[in-house]
Amino acid sequence: MSHDPGLASWLQLSLTPGLGPATLRKLLQQFGLPQAVLARKRSELSALAPAAALAALDSEPVANAVARALAWAAEPGHVVITLADESYPRLLLEIADPPPLLYARGRAELLQRSALAMVGSRNATQQGTANAEAFARTLSEAGLTIVSGLALGIDAAAHRGGLQGVGSTIAVLGTGIDVIYPQRNAALAAEIAARGLIVSEFALGSAPTAQNFPRRNRLISGLSRGCLVVEAAVASGSLITARAAADQGRDVFAVPGSIHSPLAKGCHVLIKSGAKLVESAEDVLTELSGFRPSGFASTREPSRAASAQAESGLLAHMGHDPVDVDSLCSRAGLSAEQVSSELLRLELDGRVAALPGGLYQRLEKEGRR
Amino acid sequence: MSHDPGLASWLQLSLTPGLGPATLRKLLQQFGLPQAVLARKRSELSALAPAAALAALDSEPVANAVARALAWAAEPGHVVITLADESYPRLLLEIADPPPLLYARGRAELLQRSALAMVGSRNATQQGTANAEAFARTLSEAGLTIVSGLALGIDAAAHRGGLQGVGSTIAVLGTGIDVIYPQRNAALAAEIAARGLIVSEFALGSAPTAQNFPRRNRLISGLSRGCLVVEAAVASGSLITARAAADQGRDVFAVPGSIHSPLAKGCHVLIKSGAKLVESAEDVLTELSGFRPSGFASTREPSRAASAQAESGLLAHMGHDPVDVDSLCSRAGLSAEQVSSELLRLELDGRVAALPGGLYQRLEKEGRR
Repeated sequence: MSHDPGLASWLQLSLTPGLGPATLRKLLQQFGLPQAVLARKRSELSALAPAAALAALDSEPVANAVARALAWAAEPGHVVITLADESYPRLLLEIADPPPLLYARGRAELLQRSALAMVGSRNATQQGTANAEAFARTLSEAGLTIVSGLALGIDAAAHRGGLQGVGSTIAVLGTGIDVIYPQRNAALAAEIAARGLIVSEFALGSAPTAQNFPRRNRLISGLSRGCLVVEAAVASGSLITARAAADQGRDVFAVPGSIHSPLAKGCHVLIKSGAKLVESAEDVLTELSGFRPSGFASTREPSRAASAQAESGLLAHMGHDPVDVDSLCSRAGLSAEQVSSELLRLELDGRVAALPGGLYQRLEKEGRR
Repeated sequence: MSHDPGLASWLQLSLTPGLGPATLRKLLQQFGLPQAVLARKRSELSALAPAAALAALDSEPVANAVARALAWAAEPGHVVITLADESYPRLLLEIADPPPLLYARGRAELLQRSALAMVGSRNATQQGTANAEAFARTLSEAGLTIVSGLALGIDAAAHRGGLQGVGSTIAVLGTGIDVIYPQRNAALAAEIAARGLIVSEFALGSAPTAQNFPRRNRLISGLSRGCLVVEAAVASGSLITARAAADQGRDVFAVPGSIHSPLAKGCHVLIKSGAKLVESAEDVLTELSGFRPSGFASTREPSRAASAQAESGLLAHMGHDPVDVDSLCSRAGLSAEQVSSELLRLELDGRVAALPGGLYQRLEKEGRR
C-alpha cells in the first residue's frame, strides 16, 4: 500500500493527544507544512506545544493510529482532505477554527457545491420531519447540497430529502467517520456514503461524546452558505449550530410554528434575534445570499403575474388622480362591492393608496413600499 | 337642551356632504375654528371647498343632521370630541389624517391611556381566539387599553380579554356610533359601552361600507402605541391596519403559527417585513416602546434569576482562563456528562464560549452577545 508521505505527517500531528487544532495551527504558522514541523528537533517545538504532546508525537500508539488512518484512506471512496489540499472546502477556510483535516467517505466533490445546513430536533414531530424532508427535497432539486448531522428526527429527514435531488446531502459526524451514531441511522448512513458524502474531523474510532457535538455543529454551518432550523427546543444543539452560522456570517433561516409548540420555541428565539422566517423552500432560495437555483421554477412569479393581469382592469380605470368609488363603479361597470373589494386587494398590494374622504389613488411602481 | 355652539359648528362642517376631512382641515388652517369658518361669506370659502359642498352647508338636511348629533351628544355617557378639545387623543394628532371629530360612548378617559391595537381574522380558529383573549387579558391587566374593531373573531376576543383587566378596551367602529355591526356583537358592544369605550369618526347612522373600514383601521392603529396581529390571511384588513401602524411609527407585533395554517400567513408576511414575532403578552410588554407595565409581575425575571443561581456552581469553577472538561469535572466534583450538559446550557445562554481543542472559557456579562 503506497501513500502520500505528506498525509502521514498531517495525520501524525493531528492524532497526537494534546496537540489540538489551535496548537497545530500555531506550529504550521511557525514552521510550514507538517513534514517541515516534524523535521524540527522536538525541543524547537516546545515553545508552542505542551511537553506531554511532544513526548507522545513519536510514540507507538500515534504511529499505530496513523497507520490505521492511512489504511482507511486507501479504501475505495475514502479520502482524507487536509488544510493544504485544493479540495479543502473554501467556505471552511473562512471560519475561526477550520479543522486541520477531514475524513470523507462518498462523493467528495459535493464539498465544492453550494450547500445549506438543515438542523433541528431529534424528537421532532411528524409534521416537522415531513416539513424538513419536503424543504430538503425542493432545495436539493434546486441544486443545493443539504448538510446535516445524521441525528434522528430533523437531521435524518433533511438527509432523506437531500438524497432525492441533484444537490444530494452531506452528513457531518461528531464521531469518528467509522463510527455510525445513532445506530438506528446505519441504513441511512450507508445510503449517504453511496450517493452523498459523510465527513468527520475526528479520529477514527472516536466515540460520541457531548463536547464533540457543538464542535461538529460549527462544521455543519461552516460548510454551508446558510442554516435552516426546522424544529428546535429553546436549549438545543440546533441553536448552537444556528449561532455558529450567524457568527460565521451565514444566513440563518427558521420555520415558525404554533406558540404552544415547544419545538417551535427555538425557531422563534432565532427569528427574534434576526433569523429570517421562512415558510417554504422558495423563501430560502429567494433569501439565500449569492445562490442562483438551477433547474428550479419558482412558483411565485406566475401567480404574481396572473394577479397583476386580473387587477389591471380596475387600475386602467384609475388614471393618476384621486378618484372615488362611485366614479370607479361607473367607469369600470362594476358594483360598489366589486370595486371596494378590488381596491382593498390593490391597497394591500401597495398599488393603490386610500386617501381621506373616500378617495383612492393609483401608486406607480417606483412609489411602492 | 343646551349645547356648545362651537360643537354645532364642528358638526355642521363635518356633516356637510363633499366636505371631507382634508378639505375641512384646509378651511381650519385658513380661517381658524369652525365658527370662524362659518362666519365667512360662502364666496370666501370657494377657493378651498367644492361649490356643491358650499351649497349644502346651510341646507336643511345638514341642519337636521347637526341637531340629531347634538341630541345624541346630550345623552349620558355620550360625547363628541373635536380636534380642538384637550381630550382629543394625543397620539391621533401624530397621524397623517386625524379625524376632525370623534363620537364616543362610554369611558372617554380611556383615550388618555396607553393603548395597544389588536386585530386579526374574522374567521379565526378556536385557538386563535383563545390566544387573542389571553394576550388581551394579560396586557389589560398590565395597564394597556386594548383597541380593536368590534369584528367577529379576533377583534371580539381581544375586546373580551381587554374587559377583564384594568386597561379595559376601546372599540373603533367603521359605521356610525349608533350602528352596531355586526349585530352578533351587539351584547359585546353594550358591555364595552358600559365598561369600556366605543368611538367612531363617521356620522350617526353611517352604514357599513367597504371603503370606511380601511379608513377606520388607521384610527385603530393611530390610537395605539403598537399593533398586535393574532391570526390573519395574506389579503386582509388586518394587514392594512398593521401597515398603517408601521407608517404611523407604531410597533407592529405578530403571532406566528404553522406554515400550513392559512391564518398564520398574514402574520408571517408581517414578520418577514419587520414586525416583531411575539409568543406571549410578556414579549409585547418587553418590546413595546416607552410603556411600563403596571401591577404586572413578569414571569421572566424569576426564572432567569433561578437559572443564574443553578449555573453559578459551574461558572464559579471556571475562573477566567480556558479550561477543559476533565479539569472542570474534578474542580466541580461532577461527571463529564453533567459538566458537558451544563456547558451546553451556559454556551446557549452566551455565558461560556467553546474554544478549539475542547476548551471552554467564561464570558463576562459585558462580553455577552
